[in-house]
Amino acid sequence: MKQIPFYHTRLNGAFWGEKQRISKEVTVDAVYDRFAETKRFEALKCDAEQQAREGWHTHFFWDSDIAKWIEGAAYILERGRNDALEAKVDAIIDDMCANQMADGYYNCFFKIYDTEKRFTIRDRHELYCLGHLIEAAIAYRHATGKDKLLCMVERYVDYVIRVFTVEKTAKFMTPGHEEIELALVKLYRATGKQKYLELAKFFVDKRGANALDPDGYCGFATAHYAQDHLPVREMTTAEGHSVRAMYLYIAMADLALECGDEALFHACEAILKNVAHKRMYVTGGIGSSHIGEAFTVDYDLKNEPAYTETCATLALALFCQRMTKIKPMGWYADTAELAMYNGSISGVSMAGDEFFYENPLAIDLADHNKNPATKDKERYPITQRLKVFGCSCCPPNILRFINAIGDFMYTEDGDTLYVHHYMNGETEYEGKTIRQTTAYPSCGKVKLEVDGYKKLAVRVPGWCTAFEASAPYEVRDGYAYFDAVDVLDLDFHIQPRLVVSAPGVHDNAGRVALLYGPVVYCMEGVDNKDDIFALSIDPNTAFTLTPDEYFGMPRITADGYLKVDCGQLYTAINAVQYENRCLNFIPYYAMENRGETDMQVWIPLKA
Amino acid sequence: MKQIPFYHTRLNGAFWGEKQRISKEVTVDAVYDRFAETKRFEALKCDAEQQAREGWHTHFFWDSDIAKWIEGAAYILERGRNDALEAKVDAIIDDMCANQMADGYYNCFFKIYDTEKRFTIRDRHELYCLGHLIEAAIAYRHATGKDKLLCMVERYVDYVIRVFTVEKTAKFMTPGHEEIELALVKLYRATGKQKYLELAKFFVDKRGANALDPDGYCGFATAHYAQDHLPVREMTTAEGHSVRAMYLYIAMADLALECGDEALFHACEAILKNVAHKRMYVTGGIGSSHIGEAFTVDYDLKNEPAYTETCATLALALFCQRMTKIKPMGWYADTAELAMYNGSISGVSMAGDEFFYENPLAIDLADHNKNPATKDKERYPITQRLKVFGCSCCPPNILRFINAIGDFMYTEDGDTLYVHHYMNGETEYEGKTIRQTTAYPSCGKVKLEVDGYKKLAVRVPGWCTAFEASAPYEVRDGYAYFDAVDVLDLDFHIQPRLVVSAPGVHDNAGRVALLYGPVVYCMEGVDNKDDIFALSIDPNTAFTLTPDEYFGMPRITADGYLKVDCGQLYTAINAVQYENRCLNFIPYYAMENRGETDMQVWIPLKA
Repeated sequence: MKQIPFYHTRLNGAFWGEKQRISKEVTVDAVYDRFAETKRFEALKCDAEQQAREGWHTHFFWDSDIAKWIEGAAYILERGRNDALEAKVDAIIDDMCANQMADGYYNCFFKIYDTEKRFTIRDRHELYCLGHLIEAAIAYRHATGKDKLLCMVERYVDYVIRVFTVEKTAKFMTPGHEEIELALVKLYRATGKQKYLELAKFFVDKRGANALDPDGYCGFATAHYAQDHLPVREMTTAEGHSVRAMYLYIAMADLALECGDEALFHACEAILKNVAHKRMYVTGGIGSSHIGEAFTVDYDLKNEPAYTETCATLALALFCQRMTKIKPMGWYADTAELAMYNGSISGVSMAGDEFFYENPLAIDLADHNKNPATKDKERYPITQRLKVFGCSCCPPNILRFINAIGDFMYTEDGDTLYVHHYMNGETEYEGKTIRQTTAYPSCGKVKLEVDGYKKLAVRVPGWCTAFEASAPYEVRDGYAYFDAVDVLDLDFHIQPRLVVSAPGVHDNAGRVALLYGPVVYCMEGVDNKDDIFALSIDPNTAFTLTPDEYFGMPRITADGYLKVDCGQLYTAINAVQYENRCLNFIPYYAMENRGETDMQVWIPLKA
Repeated sequence: MKQIPFYHTRLNGAFWGEKQRISKEVTVDAVYDRFAETKRFEALKCDAEQQAREGWHTHFFWDSDIAKWIEGAAYILERGRNDALEAKVDAIIDDMCANQMADGYYNCFFKIYDTEKRFTIRDRHELYCLGHLIEAAIAYRHATGKDKLLCMVERYVDYVIRVFTVEKTAKFMTPGHEEIELALVKLYRATGKQKYLELAKFFVDKRGANALDPDGYCGFATAHYAQDHLPVREMTTAEGHSVRAMYLYIAMADLALECGDEALFHACEAILKNVAHKRMYVTGGIGSSHIGEAFTVDYDLKNEPAYTETCATLALALFCQRMTKIKPMGWYADTAELAMYNGSISGVSMAGDEFFYENPLAIDLADHNKNPATKDKERYPITQRLKVFGCSCCPPNILRFINAIGDFMYTEDGDTLYVHHYMNGETEYEGKTIRQTTAYPSCGKVKLEVDGYKKLAVRVPGWCTAFEASAPYEVRDGYAYFDAVDVLDLDFHIQPRLVVSAPGVHDNAGRVALLYGPVVYCMEGVDNKDDIFALSIDPNTAFTLTPDEYFGMPRITADGYLKVDCGQLYTAINAVQYENRCLNFIPYYAMENRGETDMQVWIPLKA
């Protein structure tokens, strides 16, 4: 199977076209400006004296923040060159390249701090930064033809190959934070140079299987934290720091595809199954615990403290997308879809300039700073998006994710076109054309017009219990297969639906969530005059939909109840009174955009 | 109103008689032996060199642990002298008295450590320790006639009066941990010396109203933590460290009674209302948060992390009991009853030798140590009772509480006898006799035979919706008033009942708790083969009761459902399947007595 890369497709308006417009008009500059204000670009001057004088300090992962921004900017440039934006990128790249060491090493932190500790501290993110630089370099060369950064990172990678696999002088064998592995596969694909694939395999194969990287890693965490608890082919569960984990699994899937490594593919599938069936919020969010930003155990999916970092959730979508390239199984793309439409894009404001790092499934303002005796000693996710973070990995990550979203749409297998995701857009690829006309996911109607393919395979979303097509088909593994059609009309019936959690998810006992297609809905205080946590829903409710331009999806109302406060804490069940209420829902991804307000995804059934 | 002190009553078997038997046969020695093992008695030798040599260290509140044990032992001695037990107490008292300083000061920590810091550190519990010594001294003199400890503490209190109110040389004005205030009222009552009442008033009146005790107290907490946020008569909510708070409120109620201080009484009533209507678990447990062991905000009553220290809950019962002495309002005693039968006695094992400090309302073993990436960094209450704690305040506190439980039973107002609580026992008091025959709370039938009173007022428990009496009565404020009866048969109908929380208790939305009279029930994994958190209850269930000797209360079964695991995390509501299950409940106070097991009080209704 071959993926049709996003830059062959132009998304026109609708859900993702609109997200890309905001991304181009607002986000790319907003992230740049905040990075400028926080000295991230000035840090590239590597002037320790200046920093001491001015009282600031390069952070050891700032290179990666900048690299992700470059990658996002490059994806925007794919849709149209822009001198001003390129000038900014070029200036950054000039500064970076000026600081590359004679031996090829580059890192704007180690250049001036802890220089003697180069490649001795496993958790200092040097190879993680390099991975993002590789992705940025490939993206920027593809968009502009400029290869200065690519030349620089290739020279650096050659140095890494020497240090890690020939001289073996590094104090660790595999990086503390994965990322370089998947970037090396990309670099191999971009350059055709086998050595990069070999290095990717080295880092993946040694993980969990070498004596140099000790258990009790970093003095903070166990080997699970760093996905170092097992050799990768023996892994069956998603473990540890959720972003690191996903970046590893993406690389594993990439290598499984490149190398035809079935054991690696089976490990990936077991892990993805573990995530999708036991360790994922209904929003596609992953990594329940702020402690270690980590996976915990099966079914540990508490709503209010849900960590579910934006980076982790979008990386889950990317992992699924890599799996889809190996084998078209509907549930891979179903899982990606939850992450795409919910827990990843909730990370950016509707206006495009503010960001969530954590994406909780409930915000109960009464619980925040709740202890006047010991204020601020309890930890809760923040309740409003910020313009930048100290650890600001998520903002540029969602930038690059949204602008490469077209990567999710199509793969081809010989003369069969696979349609995995529905987005309004036109594609030209190696002489073939695809036109997809749809308002998905606010409406389930999709028109496909293709030229150059004999067969079509379209994913039938797992949530869809009824659909119609203008031609006969056969369904296998979540895909409907069509023969010899050029024009196809599909209608995936979308109705609001209530879902229930598996019994193991103890926090959701007696509760339901409302979804519309792949989009999770939530109740916010701003739309519901009562305490939203005192509201419950009628399981047999009818729903009313109202189109809403701001949300890009309909608002939904349902029949519910307010438990009446009788003044007593505990009341006999037959004495409790309820009043009818209309419950107002909006898409979860749009939560907390209209001021600080209570928010809840899992709504109790009337008790 | 006059209280009839517990030592005029002999409890015969039944619920509390049995608790007292175990307390006498097991708990008093178990606590003593653990205290001996942990050097608490050896610390009274005040031999710093020995401690340095052996590598241990007196703790600054050990005097209070020992004092509470003495008080508990004294209450047992009220039921029958015991030379061996008295010899232990006498030896302790000899050691304590030998270490009293020339000026009257006594503290086994400050005697050898930080001696120059005497009365300079507000949170070092010197006056808290003295308070418990006062209570112990009064109790021991009453039980045995021996007054050595009482003489010692009186001399110490005289010194405190000089330092705090005459010379004013202490570095704080009111103690960081309340307790001395209520003890001073007791000392005033025991000796008739007005100066002790004055000192109690001094400490209570200055709280929240003096410049010497700063906000931001201890560098840890705000003034709320130490109930120093307002002058006491302006308080309307229960704030801060829950044990400290309760000890203050008890003293406030005592002073309101002694001084006829209506403003103080109204503050107490507002605070108690705040607790009973907004800040109390259904078990009578208080102090939701482990951060500061504190009250938080209204309705913040999460079940799994519930802190609800044993000491706080039993102190709430004592606060209610003090309020009842001022004004017979049924809801005071109802609140006490919840604390008495649930969250306080859950603090001691059925065998009497192991203790909970925290009393959570749910124990989900899957949640404990759940993060293999970062093991042990998450905080949960312990799941099995311990024999002793580093901070072992609760074990001797429950010892003294159970052995003075008779204090809750009766007050008299002229020729009216008030019966507040139902316990099987015989009372002789100033020539009058009362015999109460009952198996309460396993059965609601009570026979009262009295001699010496003209009128009877018996509390009708707030949970009781139907009762019968053998004589005509009139109900006011939760009490049934009877004229001219010597023998009275009462029958409070007890049926298992489901209760629902106020809408503000967000954690309990969609959930119910099962109570039988005042006794809260829970489900344990050991009695229910399925994952108890996947079980839900039928709101219209019938209940089956089975007498159980071990629990001293019936086991209860109800009709419920098990949510079937279909392998998917999220399922459409109409596709979820349930199987019928019989739900097994036991009294909450007996939780975790049969090995480590899942436990839950608030059960979801079927979703």
